[in-house]
This record gives sequence, C-alpha cells and structure tokens, in this order.
Amino acid sequence: MTVALFSSFTPAFIAIICILLAVIVRSSRAPEKKGGFEQRRPQESRPWVDEDLTDSTDLHLQDEDTEEWQEEEDQLHVPFSGERSSHDEMVRKSKEFYEMLNKRRSVRFISSEPVPREVIDNIIRAAGTAPSGAHTEPWTFVVVQDPEAKHKIREIIEEEEEINYMKRMGEKWVNDLKRLRTNWVKEYLDTAPYLILIFKQVYGLLPQNKKKTHYYNEISVSIACGILLAALQNAGLVTVTTTPLNCGPRLRVLLQRPVNEKLLMLLPVGYPSKDATVPDLKRKPLEDIMVVV
Amino acid sequence: MTVALFSSFTPAFIAIICILLAVIVRSSRAPEKKGGFEQRRPQESRPWVDEDLTDSTDLHLQDEDTEEWQEEEDQLHVPFSGERSSHDEMVRKSKEFYEMLNKRRSVRFISSEPVPREVIDNIIRAAGTAPSGAHTEPWTFVVVQDPEAKHKIREIIEEEEEINYMKRMGEKWVNDLKRLRTNWVKEYLDTAPYLILIFKQVYGLLPQNKKKTHYYNEISVSIACGILLAALQNAGLVTVTTTPLNCGPRLRVLLQRPVNEKLLMLLPVGYPSKDATVPDLKRKPLEDIMVVV
Repeated sequence: MTVALFSSFTPAFIAIICILLAVIVRSSRAPEKKGGFEQRRPQESRPWVDEDLTDSTDLHLQDEDTEEWQEEEDQLHVPFSGERSSHDEMVRKSKEFYEMLNKRRSVRFISSEPVPREVIDNIIRAAGTAPSGAHTEPWTFVVVQDPEAKHKIREIIEEEEEINYMKRMGEKWVNDLKRLRTNWVKEYLDTAPYLILIFKQVYGLLPQNKKKTHYYNEISVSIACGILLAALQNAGLVTVTTTPLNCGPRLRVLLQRPVNEKLLMLLPVGYPSKDATVPDLKRKPLEDIMVVV
Repeated sequence: MTVALFSSFTPAFIAIICILLAVIVRSSRAPEKKGGFEQRRPQESRPWVDEDLTDSTDLHLQDEDTEEWQEEEDQLHVPFSGERSSHDEMVRKSKEFYEMLNKRRSVRFISSEPVPREVIDNIIRAAGTAPSGAHTEPWTFVVVQDPEAKHKIREIIEEEEEINYMKRMGEKWVNDLKRLRTNWVKEYLDTAPYLILIFKQVYGLLPQNKKKTHYYNEISVSIACGILLAALQNAGLVTVTTTPLNCGPRLRVLLQRPVNEKLLMLLPVGYPSKDATVPDLKRKPLEDIMVVV
C-alpha cells in the first residue's frame, strides 16, 4: 500500500514536496539563529572576555529598569550629611589628588620586597566602596601571596601568551622567536609579593539554585578597579593593568573560584624594582578630554 | 531531451536529490551563522549598551595580543622612581584613603548651589590619569553647566524612562502611574550645577577615514569613572551613578558628539541638598570580598 502510494507520485510532485522540506529545514533553524540576543545585537562582541564568560548568565537584563544603581524602592532612607570644605580647600584638595594620581605609571618591574598585608587589606576595602548595579557588589578580590600559586599562575599565563603570539606571528616569524619571547615572559608574576586577581560575579546564587542577575557587573567591577588603582598609588605601590587573554577559565579553576565568577583583571602589586623603567608616554591635556557645554 | 531525462528519474532518485538539496541549503546558511563573532560568543550580550552601540566598530579585536595595556614595543623607556613611604606611613595613608571613600554614598538630592569650575577641572584631570588599553585614552568628559542644555537632557531621560516604566508595568499598573512617577522624575538633572556625561570612544579615526580600534574601551572608561568618583568624594562633592537606558543616541546628538563616541555614564554633580537622604545600605565586610591564597 505504501509502496503503491509512493510510486504513484509524479517526479514533479516529489520535487515540490522536497522543496517544501527544504523550506521547513531552513525555518526550523531560524529560531535557533534569531533567538536570544544575536538578533538584537548581532554585531556585538566582548573580545577581552574569556570564552567561559559566554554562558547564559548575562542574558536576562534588558527588560528591567536599571538606570539608577540603587534598589531604592523598598529601602529605608536615612538622612545624609556630607562634610563641607571651603572653596580654597576644595581647590587645593582636588589639585593634590590629581597630582598624586598623575604620578601613577604602569610598572612591569616589580621588586620582591615584602609589602605589609594591612596595606593590601585597606586597598581592597577601598575598592569595595565602589557603587554597583542594584548594590550587588559583584566583585571578588583574590590576593595571591603563596609563591607556588604565583608560579602556577605564571605558567598558565605564559603558556597562553605563547599560543597567542604564535598564532599572531604565523610561520614567517618563526625564526624571530627569541626577540619576541620577552613579550610573553612575565617575571613580575613570580617577583611581585602579591597578585590581585579581580573576578566579576556575573550572577548571584539564590535558594533553589536560582540565579540573581548582577546588572552592570563588568562596569561595576571596572569602577572598583579604578578605585583600587587610585588606592595603590596613594599607598606608594605600583602595578600594571593586565587582562590575561584566554586564561580566565584555567585561573578560575586553579584558584577554586565558583562558576559564577569570571576573571576581569590581574594586577601584580609591589614596590617598583630599583632599575624599573616605564615607556615614555604622555597623557592628553585637559582640553582634549573635556568638553564644556 | 530535458523533459525525457526528467521523466526518466524514479521518484526515489528525485527524493535523494532533494534531500541533498536540503543539506546544501542548510550548509549554505552555516557560514552566515558562524561567521563573525556570534559563533565564538553566541550567548553574549551587553544589555546596558544602547542600540546604537552595536555598530561594527568593536569587532576587530580578537586577533591582537592586548593582554598588557601599554603599547611598549616601539616606546622609548625611561627610568621610573616612585616615592617611598615608611611601613607605618603606608598603613596610615591606606587606612585614611579607605575611610574617606567609605563615606561616599550615591546621593539623588543635589543642591543647586554653585561649585567652583576649577574643582571640576581637577577632578576630570584626575580621571584622565586612568590606564587604558594600548594607551588610547578613549574617553570624553562632557561637562554640562548650561541650564537649558541640562533641561533638554532631563526631558530626554524622563521621556525614555517613562517608556521603560510603561513597558515594564504593562496594563495592570496603568492606574498606579502616580506612585511610580517619582521614579522617573529626575529633578537633580535640573538642579545639579554640573552634569558630567562620560563617553567612551569605541574607535579612533585615522587618516583616510580608517578606524583605529580602541581595545578594552569600556573597561578603560569605567576605570576612569572609578577614579572620577574617588576624586569627587575627595573634593566633598556628591553624585549618583546612572547609565540612562536607551538615551545614548539622543544625548550624543544633543551634545554634538561624533559617532565614534557612546554614552557610558551620566553623573549629576554638586553638593548634597540640606534634606538629602540615602537608602540605608551596608557594604560587605572585607572577608566577603577578599580571598587570600
């Protein structure tokens, strides 16, 4: 019966059915392609983000109103009184603050001389005063002082770095390896008394394994990093801002951080070594970065 | 001849051809789907980003090595010498810095009392000392002091805010508009003596209209914002961190900023008003944000 039915189809009829099938196959793929966020923001990427950052935890944001960063509706309000300085005092303070920060440089040559832990604690306390989306405080500061752990971190980073360089160079550079090697050898990862690895918590965990969205977690944690850099400079310590490429997942596992945390930045921290040098860079003058309306 | 050939096909043979066609259709769609960045980071989104941020300018990053933030290879190096404090001095300084910043609160009630422009200039100079990917310094700080411009900004933000609320509420909330209205009425946009709008330059412009990628521009500008917030607090001024939803394009046009600039943040700046209140929030203690290895 089935065979009889099949053989009674004309070739043209079968061709039509197959074209319909092709259309069905195409449209059955469409939801996969259009679903989620690709449709809305097809060209976006965050290339500084490690591959394991691309889970689904950042995705449930856009229907919320999160313009202001405090969840205020249900919060009790209390009076606020700031400290007030005179005109001259404000000008003086703001100038001194700028001058202190303007001496900051990214330093790759870090002495192994020990740094008081209390200072590091205070610097991280300062970073923790940053504002954050809906006051989620979505940051974890991992302070690595153990020499063995530092060395493992160095191995992971240099390994990935070497892969990055090799890929970038291609074959024509193969003979020039030695010259480039200095670029991916990160001695400071061993010598610096502290490595501070800053993780962003892309979501929080609620009871019954539900996820709590951390709005603006990357911006929030970057703001905290800005405050941390200012605090380091204020204390007379140096660092170099790094965002190790492709190392996030391995470093997260090494440091036993949970899956909701993603590496944003790694800062080797210490005193500058005696023979430290820095690139001879200048900063833009005020008129190039400020516009008054 | 063609007809003869066609009619000589058995239905089964045509079915096979059509299945092959379906496979071809599927695979011909694959490159479109896999091309670009969606394949690598299929689930990413940056929902805090305005729609006009989704142009193609952020896309050409991943093949570069940008782990460290300085372009050092071709840079002349110069000796670096930091200032050195005693152990006790460092502990004292770091503690005072933390305590100063720990008094910072997000304040929505801002007095119209004038603030010296010189202080604002120094604060923006301080923000401009932030590190940035490949030293691109990809920030523009637009300081709005003109009352008319401030009011236009307020109109744009409240309009978009209202749309956001309406969408979120749906019909069942339609009668409760009044209660919610306070949430999107932003009086501080008129009263604050300054609005600082921070734009990230997602790319730079080279001769012949070529684009220069600004690596890590969002992280860099967020770090600068962190330093700016610290500088404001140091000077005795208050603000509230806001990222106006969906307003970026209109505000960019209003302030005549070029297309490579995207709004990241808006900070109303001034003294707190006499009756200012803040939500009764606490910060996480050190042990909840720091892990020592």
